[in-house]
Amino acid sequence: MSRFLSERFSNIEPYTPGEQPKVSNLIKLNTNESPFPPSPKVIEALNNEELSKLNLYSDPDTKEVIDAIAKTFGVSSNQILMGNGSDEILAFAFQAFCDKVNEPCFADITYGFYPVFCELYGLEPEIIPLKDDLSIGIKDYIGKNKPIFIANPNAPTGLALSLTDIEKILESNKDSVVLIDEAYVDFGAESAVSLVDKYDNLIVSRTFSKSRNLAGARIGFAISTPELIADMCKMKFSFNPYNLNRLSIIAGKESVLDTEYFNRCISEIISNREYTVNELTKRGFTIPDSKANFIFAKHNTLSGEEYFNELRKRNIVVRYFSKERIKDYVRITIGSIEQMKALIEATDEILKG
Amino acid sequence: MSRFLSERFSNIEPYTPGEQPKVSNLIKLNTNESPFPPSPKVIEALNNEELSKLNLYSDPDTKEVIDAIAKTFGVSSNQILMGNGSDEILAFAFQAFCDKVNEPCFADITYGFYPVFCELYGLEPEIIPLKDDLSIGIKDYIGKNKPIFIANPNAPTGLALSLTDIEKILESNKDSVVLIDEAYVDFGAESAVSLVDKYDNLIVSRTFSKSRNLAGARIGFAISTPELIADMCKMKFSFNPYNLNRLSIIAGKESVLDTEYFNRCISEIISNREYTVNELTKRGFTIPDSKANFIFAKHNTLSGEEYFNELRKRNIVVRYFSKERIKDYVRITIGSIEQMKALIEATDEILKG
Repeated sequence: MSRFLSERFSNIEPYTPGEQPKVSNLIKLNTNESPFPPSPKVIEALNNEELSKLNLYSDPDTKEVIDAIAKTFGVSSNQILMGNGSDEILAFAFQAFCDKVNEPCFADITYGFYPVFCELYGLEPEIIPLKDDLSIGIKDYIGKNKPIFIANPNAPTGLALSLTDIEKILESNKDSVVLIDEAYVDFGAESAVSLVDKYDNLIVSRTFSKSRNLAGARIGFAISTPELIADMCKMKFSFNPYNLNRLSIIAGKESVLDTEYFNRCISEIISNREYTVNELTKRGFTIPDSKANFIFAKHNTLSGEEYFNELRKRNIVVRYFSKERIKDYVRITIGSIEQMKALIEATDEILKG
Repeated sequence: MSRFLSERFSNIEPYTPGEQPKVSNLIKLNTNESPFPPSPKVIEALNNEELSKLNLYSDPDTKEVIDAIAKTFGVSSNQILMGNGSDEILAFAFQAFCDKVNEPCFADITYGFYPVFCELYGLEPEIIPLKDDLSIGIKDYIGKNKPIFIANPNAPTGLALSLTDIEKILESNKDSVVLIDEAYVDFGAESAVSLVDKYDNLIVSRTFSKSRNLAGARIGFAISTPELIADMCKMKFSFNPYNLNRLSIIAGKESVLDTEYFNRCISEIISNREYTVNELTKRGFTIPDSKANFIFAKHNTLSGEEYFNELRKRNIVVRYFSKERIKDYVRITIGSIEQMKALIEATDEILKG
């Protein structure tokens, strides 16, 4: 650090995003991107006419994409806030709703960015261990009365909570914000969006990076009550009013309206996930029941690190976390069927070796 | 505010961006956008092949655009950080380098976002009044020994400091960061980029929104020492590692490499500014010597608010600030020559009326 950095950041450890190798011919299964291009309607809409308007600012109210989301999700437009990816939404929530008297809590094994936001905003979170089977213990979240952050499905386990369980948490923490991070919900879990009109403490965060095939466009959003959205909006307008660029607003709108393409991509990922889970299970892997576009796999003899390294030698990149409780696992993004077949082939080779 | 918002934000007043009216046929001279489309090379590069890769994350290191900027500005790549617009760069700087023992200082009349960042991060800035002629008094910044934020040229006055004056400030504040916000520097002021290797306390912030015709792509950057860049990089990676989307990285790269188009647009704006200043001066306006793509104009009889309202009736939007010291002025973005001629025509009509 330079001699000018504020003391309070002297120990900050930024988030480490998954590797983005510049090698070609790589099968990249490490950052939970979609293997499919964006909806053809997105590509069509980002035409030369729109590109030639890039000299003009984007709409700070991001009305076009908000209205399209509102329509699709059956909520009002004032219940939605757009973020430059859902990371920005999460950041606004940690900043707006947590402080010295409202310290957040979340699982020990979950999205690795939550503790980083806490460092950034000087928060001291309560870390709640997952159960031995890596699932979230609902009882641990009953009556916490502090801001709760839950990824559902959870990352990197892929395990999902039922809506009934989420409702128990909401019900017993009425004076604290509960944020359900639904980055992966479209791949088979139950969404809490249906509860936003019932609980005034619920925020659901979403992203276009996974199920909408738009990781590179940086589009996230929150659905909540108009009041909580207005609060987060204050964060946005005090930080970066034009947080979404023109092209992402258009891409988001076109993408969310193309339900047919969306459903087709989702079905294919779910079917590829089933294939991969079956094949890996036959080969001695244990895999928690994933409702996400990734699986978390542990072999009965091969170590997680070795599997990761051996796959890498074969040009397949998955994600390995050296963290104690999960060091036997690798997280594998579900890609196209060709990619998954290549993974199984490589795995056979590794297990033989 | 909801009952969940942290107490510390109970009085926050977010930034109000310039109006983005959805009316067509409007001559929009209120947000300092360029009247010209982005470089044809930008439009060419954002082709279907790139659009179809939007399912993949953008490069968190934004290497392609950083390398292009480094080449153009003659600095090393580790002296550059990209932001989602320069507002994000400014936010990172306020967050990283200011705190209770290092409260920032800046002018009373300057970019209206500085006090908002202070509210967001709980800072208590020292506000330094401009001189009576609305210029920055250099002496007021000598030996402050606190973080200094200066827009050069200043907004909304358009007045610029010389490099010699900036160097005096840097020289006398060696233990504090000095950020020179050069959003408008390309329109005729001297850049401090040449000083970043000489002063380890200097940060220059820049944007593609004005002189690069890319307001809608949200691209800003900082040039500084590798150490200060590393500090701000920690903010970025603790907040939003993929802060630039794929298309903006490409647009930024192509734009910065197209020097010829850039120079052509700049010359035209400067020439249109001269035309406008001449014509308005003839009609009884006083205009500080602008080095920006806007002018700050005050009439000897017509009030600022009236001029603003009358222009608006004629479908011309400029910016009016009701703030005490500058309430006699309107800020007028320099657009195309046709737009400026329409402004003069409308002004004649208003003055006759």
